[in-house]
Amino acid sequence: MARTFNFNAGPAAMPLAVLERAQAELLDLGGFGMSVMEMSHRSKEFQSIIDAAEAGIRRLMGISDEYAVLFLQGGASLQFVMIPMNLRRAGKTADYVDTGSWASKAIKEAKITGATNVAWSGKGDNYTRIPQKGELKLSPDAEYLHICTNETIGGIRWMQFPETSAPLVADMSSEILSRTVDVKRFAMIYAGAQKNLGPSGLAVVILRKDLAERTPESVPFFLRYSTHIADGSMYNTPNTWGIYLLKLTCDWVESQGGVAAIQKLNEKKAGKIYNVLDSSDFWKPPVEKESRSIMNIVWRLASEAMEEQFLAQAKKEGFVGLKGHRSVGGIRASVYNAVPMEAVDSLASFMKDFEKKNG
Amino acid sequence: MARTFNFNAGPAAMPLAVLERAQAELLDLGGFGMSVMEMSHRSKEFQSIIDAAEAGIRRLMGISDEYAVLFLQGGASLQFVMIPMNLRRAGKTADYVDTGSWASKAIKEAKITGATNVAWSGKGDNYTRIPQKGELKLSPDAEYLHICTNETIGGIRWMQFPETSAPLVADMSSEILSRTVDVKRFAMIYAGAQKNLGPSGLAVVILRKDLAERTPESVPFFLRYSTHIADGSMYNTPNTWGIYLLKLTCDWVESQGGVAAIQKLNEKKAGKIYNVLDSSDFWKPPVEKESRSIMNIVWRLASEAMEEQFLAQAKKEGFVGLKGHRSVGGIRASVYNAVPMEAVDSLASFMKDFEKKNG
Repeated sequence: MARTFNFNAGPAAMPLAVLERAQAELLDLGGFGMSVMEMSHRSKEFQSIIDAAEAGIRRLMGISDEYAVLFLQGGASLQFVMIPMNLRRAGKTADYVDTGSWASKAIKEAKITGATNVAWSGKGDNYTRIPQKGELKLSPDAEYLHICTNETIGGIRWMQFPETSAPLVADMSSEILSRTVDVKRFAMIYAGAQKNLGPSGLAVVILRKDLAERTPESVPFFLRYSTHIADGSMYNTPNTWGIYLLKLTCDWVESQGGVAAIQKLNEKKAGKIYNVLDSSDFWKPPVEKESRSIMNIVWRLASEAMEEQFLAQAKKEGFVGLKGHRSVGGIRASVYNAVPMEAVDSLASFMKDFEKKNG
Repeated sequence: MARTFNFNAGPAAMPLAVLERAQAELLDLGGFGMSVMEMSHRSKEFQSIIDAAEAGIRRLMGISDEYAVLFLQGGASLQFVMIPMNLRRAGKTADYVDTGSWASKAIKEAKITGATNVAWSGKGDNYTRIPQKGELKLSPDAEYLHICTNETIGGIRWMQFPETSAPLVADMSSEILSRTVDVKRFAMIYAGAQKNLGPSGLAVVILRKDLAERTPESVPFFLRYSTHIADGSMYNTPNTWGIYLLKLTCDWVESQGGVAAIQKLNEKKAGKIYNVLDSSDFWKPPVEKESRSIMNIVWRLASEAMEEQFLAQAKKEGFVGLKGHRSVGGIRASVYNAVPMEAVDSLASFMKDFEKKNG
């Protein structure tokens, strides 16, 4: 069977070894005569899976016991709601940096439930850059500062994270486990699983435990972090299949040498595409060089007609997922951890060919 | 490979045919060279899967266009929060019937956000029966009446649904697709998928569309039904794997002759266990006969020591999931749609043997 060159933005390519293992075990996990999907989440068999998933995330990211690691549902979108409800106390303000589509969605939800200060917005620049040091207009006593470290749609990322006295809360959905991160600098890190961690329907929340004590009593139990911490992510039935795949994905990242080794590979993969984009004026990458994502690489061509031609031909050649997000158009290659070098090499070579014929 | 006799309460047994199909397609769905988990939720391939899942639920349950069918995350537990936030306007009351553990959880969340009237509680009877007609103390102008039609832990179910002028909202997590239901009698039906619909991490919401217009503007966008209706369950990335399996499960139910045929089978399966329970005083089923669930069958034995012996021996014989919920103890057999007659026959025969040796 030929695997497609999959550049989807999420749900996205998963490691072949993970999929093969899941396939082999689908009817019978560990000799128990049932699928992992048929196991009780209260069984000791499943408990050992969720424990291993948590241990995997902790080991790969270097997370101390000061932090809880939660497996929740509702993706990053539910976190956009839970963060202000839990971490912003009555009458207080939260700071947000507006770097693009995902940061904006977080801001939209935060505004519904309380005072929200947009400390900087890249909207005027069409979200083509991350703010410079000193550009952020922070509130003197913000409850937290929220950033989206990598904007999947705009293709920009924070190379260096902002220095702040307020607790730093970061949406890392589209770059978690793709680069080393000093977790201690963050009060909270969260991510939808469907890019670098596993299938959709699962979110990982890494939260400094003391912050879970802020939640007002007016917040429903299910929406409180303290509820899920107290029950080890089992207050309700979790996405057991997703957690199982996340555990396999952590094993796979470790087999690749861990996050630092994966980061080197990711930089090499992204470098190959950016090299083509920088090689001539035929390619029009809109993002400022210092803000370039290594997960989501976006570019334009001279005209929309040329872009359509590029996409049509790429599709014919077996490249999937290269169309830019419907809100911005253009072209985007998402090169998450699981996208193999071979797929990137093929894309780079297809791009050079395309330029030769149409440049 | 020997399949275990799986009587788990949820996550629970899934149809073997569904699992085999999922296994066969896991690396390559429909010749697209990728797993369904790797497909964009915005692709036309996935759109056809979610459309088929919705059509399957609509066809099997006879749901008219007056209702939206949504695929959400967070299980029934998030619905416990969303229902009062969306359907109970400021200053108004909602009625709840307390039939057991799950109804109680719904009530607990409803009380956080507004006026909640418990119209009846079975707590005094240890949750061993459904209320009789006339026992409900309904509010004169309740925004809705909430019931849990089948209590997974207590093993009781509403044989006939209450007649009410307020919109009827029903948690059917542990019995959806197990019996025919006149959807028109309900304003909303919802269910976590992990019993009769597919894997955990997915919830189905069937909502009369006019009710989605009640939501106050103070509710975060993600928690509004109108948000998910407007975007066809794709406001955020849905649990694509879960929706795919739900689609396969609907196909399987249809292949069994639909819900009416499955109901007959379910009644036959449950009947075989209840027949043993009614055959002698050795068995002590606590539930009133008129309130007996055909999905979750609970019983006690003369002593906890005898129960432990039963469970230990059952486990040795390859029966899984027979331990009663940790909150109530005893023994429970969950016989969802996917539990085969063979498993039920084996359990009944094991029970008779056990009685012979220990009675």
